[in-house]
Amino acid sequence: MSDQFDNVTVKKQANLYFDGKCVSHTILFADGTKKTLGVIFPSSLTFSTGAPEIMEITAGKCRIKLAGQSEWQTYEGGQQFDVAGNSSFEIETIDTLDYVCHFG
Amino acid sequence: MSDQFDNVTVKKQANLYFDGKCVSHTILFADGTKKTLGVIFPSSLTFSTGAPEIMEITAGKCRIKLAGQSEWQTYEGGQQFDVAGNSSFEIETIDTLDYVCHFG
Repeated sequence: MSDQFDNVTVKKQANLYFDGKCVSHTILFADGTKKTLGVIFPSSLTFSTGAPEIMEITAGKCRIKLAGQSEWQTYEGGQQFDVAGNSSFEIETIDTLDYVCHFG
Repeated sequence: MSDQFDNVTVKKQANLYFDGKCVSHTILFADGTKKTLGVIFPSSLTFSTGAPEIMEITAGKCRIKLAGQSEWQTYEGGQQFDVAGNSSFEIETIDTLDYVCHFG
């Protein structure tokens, strides 16, 4: 997998969530799709989704529990997980994450 | 000034400094130049430069004291300041900054 996005537009203003525990920038692609590229610092957070998402972890380590599930799963750099639309997930970040969020 | 960069390459891995008080992503331009796009959370930090830099503040508020100067200057979104190469500056971030660092 490439370590960069080419030929994209990047919004200058960051998206800050949870008092800065999550920082992302919005990336726009020529085909009209959007992704967010960001960092999550060690923390225990709950994210809600509007559109379905694919969370691609490019570096770091976390544990995830999706809404309606009882088991936690561990994800590290190179792995990804799907989140349904209008849902949520709990995320315990163990080692600071670099992530790409793909919107479905 | 545009609120976005078009036709650029973005590196997926973030640059983290000062225990996450500063988070940036590297942006590469078609002409070979490089900028970093980032956030600085409220803090008092000292940055060192290699190459000369222009620090463009796109949002937020900070106070700056350049190496060798005795006065602090306040900068807000829409302003910028120059930093010499092989130098340093103290930065007191009052309101979280969105910034673009241009390398000379």
